[in-house]
Amino acid sequence: MAVYTEISDEDLARFIRSYDLGSLLSCKGIAEGVENTNYLVHTTKGAFILTIYEKRVDPKDLPFFLGLMEHLSARGVTCPLPVRDAKGRVLNELAGRHAALVTFLEGMWPKRPKVEHCLELGKALARMHVAGEGFALHRPNALGLLGWRPLFDKFSPRAEEILPELKQLISDELSFLEASWPNGLPQGVIHADLFPDNVFFIGDRLSGLIDFYFACDDALAYDIAVSLNAWCFEPNCHFNATKGRALLEGYDGVRKLTETERNVLPILARGAAMRFLLTRSYDWLNTPKDALVARKDPIDYVRRLRFHQSVQSIDNYGFEQVR
Amino acid sequence: MAVYTEISDEDLARFIRSYDLGSLLSCKGIAEGVENTNYLVHTTKGAFILTIYEKRVDPKDLPFFLGLMEHLSARGVTCPLPVRDAKGRVLNELAGRHAALVTFLEGMWPKRPKVEHCLELGKALARMHVAGEGFALHRPNALGLLGWRPLFDKFSPRAEEILPELKQLISDELSFLEASWPNGLPQGVIHADLFPDNVFFIGDRLSGLIDFYFACDDALAYDIAVSLNAWCFEPNCHFNATKGRALLEGYDGVRKLTETERNVLPILARGAAMRFLLTRSYDWLNTPKDALVARKDPIDYVRRLRFHQSVQSIDNYGFEQVR
Repeated sequence: MAVYTEISDEDLARFIRSYDLGSLLSCKGIAEGVENTNYLVHTTKGAFILTIYEKRVDPKDLPFFLGLMEHLSARGVTCPLPVRDAKGRVLNELAGRHAALVTFLEGMWPKRPKVEHCLELGKALARMHVAGEGFALHRPNALGLLGWRPLFDKFSPRAEEILPELKQLISDELSFLEASWPNGLPQGVIHADLFPDNVFFIGDRLSGLIDFYFACDDALAYDIAVSLNAWCFEPNCHFNATKGRALLEGYDGVRKLTETERNVLPILARGAAMRFLLTRSYDWLNTPKDALVARKDPIDYVRRLRFHQSVQSIDNYGFEQVR
Repeated sequence: MAVYTEISDEDLARFIRSYDLGSLLSCKGIAEGVENTNYLVHTTKGAFILTIYEKRVDPKDLPFFLGLMEHLSARGVTCPLPVRDAKGRVLNELAGRHAALVTFLEGMWPKRPKVEHCLELGKALARMHVAGEGFALHRPNALGLLGWRPLFDKFSPRAEEILPELKQLISDELSFLEASWPNGLPQGVIHADLFPDNVFFIGDRLSGLIDFYFACDDALAYDIAVSLNAWCFEPNCHFNATKGRALLEGYDGVRKLTETERNVLPILARGAAMRFLLTRSYDWLNTPKDALVARKDPIDYVRRLRFHQSVQSIDNYGFEQVR
């Protein structure tokens, strides 16, 4: 939840007038999104999300994120579509910050994802990967393999405040990942943060994907690994192989996994668990306890990492390979 | 801002199905309202506010609040209209708490009210008072004169944490108010909390009133006194007599103030300042610093109170009486 930037009445009215969206009817700060400030705006022409980009987002990346949503939307992926103002711009300014207006996507994210949700998610993720082909802009994954150790160095002296053995655990695992990280996997644009709160459903139908603010170029299968971590563990951190199978089969039905992708999935899953363990640990140690942002417990990702360390092959994720 | 109660997907779906509102499309926690949890809900039949009542609201009062909104709405006051479920009930249950669904009111509250806003507010307040006539239910003002000293007693030993002279100031003022509080004023249903964030505008047009959760029976002119405090002081706590005049003339044009009401308005304004000074002081001392609720500075109401203490007659509020 986050509503950081307050907007004056005049600034908001001027901002909305710069678009061809009719009259402003209402504007509510909504309790979603951690990185940015989001308002649900009604105008006489419909519902929109107004996003004001806070300091954690690098303005240089905004054309990539907004351009990607336009690219995917034009190729049939249901996601928020950036609205162009009267001058044709998608990126604007409001209250001294970068801001954009995108179409409002109906739907609700599943608080407790079921097997059916995982199946639909797998299909949608594969469709997004296919639709991403040919996107002209590029953005390296700042939170990929090369970013992990520098991030760890920022908090390693305090890692034991979270868990006594955490420093050693991360250090050993980083060495393993640096030595074993696979090359030569199919690359493309990945979402990189496709957690349940970024996937909307209306009833059982997947109605769209949101929040492309971690999207980047990377191995497509790494995106699957992120989703396995995000969707297929129960609240007690036990892996649910039925959900894993649904996600993987959903994906594979749309975009066939290569032999190599199947083989390296356990390593990618360890890497994805590491990525969220690192950012959550850093945030845990650096977010003031009285902040308006809920801190997410890093321990959940220690548990996930330990599971992936025990995995022998993709079979353990529930994926039954035809041999 | 407040989103306290989390709802499960199943509970929400079941709740919406109990109304004749079509299919649920989306549900966003909104960052408005301090006392309750509010969600902006879209269904195939329109936009609604789902309110989950938190512990500060006495469930016994809910029929009064919801009934009042129905009463006022039927008499042309634009305010949220409680929706009846398939069994005809306006008050329901969700996530183990009392909950209600009301129509969504388009509009935005003015962050910096202008003179024109005060004029429209005055008119709307008077219309609400007139429309409230004949409402069958009753609710005494728990935060009226008789409630002030008991509330003060709860925090008076710590009042000096806010301001060294605060304890003496409140004590003296309460004695004055208890001795001078007027009787025999025209009574009716008052809003009792008509701050700018409870009054919506679309452009310059007042589009509705919300948040009737402090409404009660009391002197109508006391409601005007609350609004003078809430709308007519600048951020530096100086009274703006142009706004005061607009508010009072707007009101008087719809419902003529009686001679007595005019005479006692300065005392009522002192009482209204006292009411918010007391609740803000109590909340200031009792809200954990890390709570998700912004604490409102009580000092603003010390300054307002001092202004009202200096007021000789309604003229000082900008109201030019025809003598």
